[in-house]
Amino acid sequence: MKILTGNFDQLATQVNQREEQAASKPEVEAAVADIIANVRANGDQALKDYSQKFDGVQVDDFKVSQATIDAGYASCSKELIDALLLAKRNITSYHEKEVSRGFIDSEQPGVIRGQKLTPLAAVGLYVPGGTAAYPSTIMMAALPAKIAGVKNIVMVTPPQPAGINPAVLAAAKLAGVDAVYQVGGAQAVAALAFGTESIPRVDKIMGPGNIFVATAKKQVFGQVAIDMIAGPSEIGIIADGQSNPAQVAADLLSQAEHDKLARPMLVTDSQALADAVNLELTKQLATLPREEIATASVNDEGFIAVVENLDDAFKLMNLIAPEHLEVQVDEPISYLNQIQNAGSVFLGRTASEPLGDYVAGPNHILPTAGTARFFSPLGVEDFVKRIQFIQYTPQALGKEAKAITTLARTEGLEGHARAIESRFN
Amino acid sequence: MKILTGNFDQLATQVNQREEQAASKPEVEAAVADIIANVRANGDQALKDYSQKFDGVQVDDFKVSQATIDAGYASCSKELIDALLLAKRNITSYHEKEVSRGFIDSEQPGVIRGQKLTPLAAVGLYVPGGTAAYPSTIMMAALPAKIAGVKNIVMVTPPQPAGINPAVLAAAKLAGVDAVYQVGGAQAVAALAFGTESIPRVDKIMGPGNIFVATAKKQVFGQVAIDMIAGPSEIGIIADGQSNPAQVAADLLSQAEHDKLARPMLVTDSQALADAVNLELTKQLATLPREEIATASVNDEGFIAVVENLDDAFKLMNLIAPEHLEVQVDEPISYLNQIQNAGSVFLGRTASEPLGDYVAGPNHILPTAGTARFFSPLGVEDFVKRIQFIQYTPQALGKEAKAITTLARTEGLEGHARAIESRFN
Repeated sequence: MKILTGNFDQLATQVNQREEQAASKPEVEAAVADIIANVRANGDQALKDYSQKFDGVQVDDFKVSQATIDAGYASCSKELIDALLLAKRNITSYHEKEVSRGFIDSEQPGVIRGQKLTPLAAVGLYVPGGTAAYPSTIMMAALPAKIAGVKNIVMVTPPQPAGINPAVLAAAKLAGVDAVYQVGGAQAVAALAFGTESIPRVDKIMGPGNIFVATAKKQVFGQVAIDMIAGPSEIGIIADGQSNPAQVAADLLSQAEHDKLARPMLVTDSQALADAVNLELTKQLATLPREEIATASVNDEGFIAVVENLDDAFKLMNLIAPEHLEVQVDEPISYLNQIQNAGSVFLGRTASEPLGDYVAGPNHILPTAGTARFFSPLGVEDFVKRIQFIQYTPQALGKEAKAITTLARTEGLEGHARAIESRFN
Repeated sequence: MKILTGNFDQLATQVNQREEQAASKPEVEAAVADIIANVRANGDQALKDYSQKFDGVQVDDFKVSQATIDAGYASCSKELIDALLLAKRNITSYHEKEVSRGFIDSEQPGVIRGQKLTPLAAVGLYVPGGTAAYPSTIMMAALPAKIAGVKNIVMVTPPQPAGINPAVLAAAKLAGVDAVYQVGGAQAVAALAFGTESIPRVDKIMGPGNIFVATAKKQVFGQVAIDMIAGPSEIGIIADGQSNPAQVAADLLSQAEHDKLARPMLVTDSQALADAVNLELTKQLATLPREEIATASVNDEGFIAVVENLDDAFKLMNLIAPEHLEVQVDEPISYLNQIQNAGSVFLGRTASEPLGDYVAGPNHILPTAGTARFFSPLGVEDFVKRIQFIQYTPQALGKEAKAITTLARTEGLEGHARAIESRFN
């Protein structure tokens, strides 16, 4: 990887070239708009036509039967089921701690004010077909929804001539997905947003997908809620000179292998570590199955920045706001207060990033492309809405009536003032 | 207003004609994209050019001086300041109850898992000029940000030949806004998203605006966070036959006066109340200053639905998911559990909607157009991001290593498995 040097301001300028948002493609936008309009007008028949056209599969019944799901589960190795069960336990115990409660406040005489938290009624999870079908992501998306109390969690995934990936069906079963539908692409997103004869309308659509899926999610946003539109994966590692170069390199490659546009980043106060990691990268890349992808990521997107001290390393990472941040230093928890912008943080030399991808319990659906400045990991709160409420006695309203009518008339809203005064006529 | 009758399914079909999202206007999209590009390239100079062109004001210094803010505050009546102070007290005490905490979980040997909550560093509030400048909205947007711990709350508002509305300056001062800049339109949104010489880049942009402002917010979304894009105001009232028709009508008009597209809705089990409210509407409209706007809203957007019983009334309102919901019945709190979809709820015959607009304390920036199905009122959580963290001992990682490598290899991600195994070589 290229090594960046210089003082802090020079480094900041080099690393902080924020990517432009991927420009939307007009031809994709138009094609997706057509698909959505067709699904709204023609429902299941449109879905059947698109499945034939895009997936090459004639679908008679979109709902995947319980027998098919059970058979997929049964065909998985015990090793895989045990791994999914461990993930489920840890994801559940972590996300249960995220649950918020509403409140009632009765501190003022004659006044009740409160907030109740209500789960979304139904959510839909998009799962890509082929090699990008990740059972771990099903666990990460469905379990927080379950904990939030969502009663209807449905999953859509493209129909496949050879049938749906058994590991995907097993994860859906273990995560408590209520129904699986074999439909993919923009048409699946449209079906979830508006409903068809066989697919229920949901309140929120989650999950990764290709450009048609992402564009469809953007187009239906507002009609339903959506999760974030995720960009390429990123890992930022802060490592001191005591860190193991082979481990640092392996962790960088774990994200580089996702995507040619993935961004592996190392910030260190040790030139020796920087050089040793580069040697290790070359060595490890040579035997990596996804060598081509990872090499492009390392060469074109990655960098190593050598800073004067660890405080500068944290300041630099806060500018980048990486999706994943490893802190390979002594006493890492003492730096937690310096971390302002990151999705998920891995403290110490043992907490390798893939631990968080699979079993530790924190979510792996995370903000990318610097958006950790303001977005959060997927969590229970994404599946809950807050409803405010108040109740006043006439006496309590009387005490505040003058303030209300004054503000209403200042804003030129006479009808607002009269509504309050109607209680005292 | 038109009166809808029929059985529940017939009523549901009539009221649940969901509005289409306002289509974006290609010429506005293009103009806004140009403005954003120009502000990114030319900073303050672009802002000055646009202020001259669109606002007819030559601005030398965008930052409004403390002396100007103080003078605006001093020119407000004591009555207005007292009303703003009451609003501030109640908004603060309500939103303080929304504050969440992070957690640390040390339940497993050798494992620390946690979540820390971090306020956004900087947020920007857009305040329209002219008659749409609402001091109450400044309080509703800035105070939750303050409570969340946001260190830099900035406000932008169009320059005005006669100077900025003193009530707006007073509200900014009382709400703890850190800086006010006189710049408006799409150029102000671009400045907040990217920063200029005099205006700082922020992490989230909030507040209402015309179509140029709304389009600019959509275009910069992803670069920064934004609050919701609000649609026309809505009020849904559930009222039984004991309710006062004059009060019900006045509350309907308080929202109708906002906008010709505002949607006043009454659902009642009493035909007599329906008729009486219609008479009152005619009577009250005749003397309302904003009669023309309110009449259009009442005639074209509003309706009264007569249902068989109150249970049906709540079911119908859940389909509509109104921004504001009044519950004018006996023992209103006994119906709280039936309310699934609403932004802000007003229980009982005394809690007139404008009470919530100004002083009760719950937020008045609320989801519209049916989005209360999945969106929440603006609150403290909108100004906080969650950062996950974990730390493992080698022994703890050893216990989970097999599950991680199994899942990684199931997903075809060999590099993930090797990163874990590098800890045990």
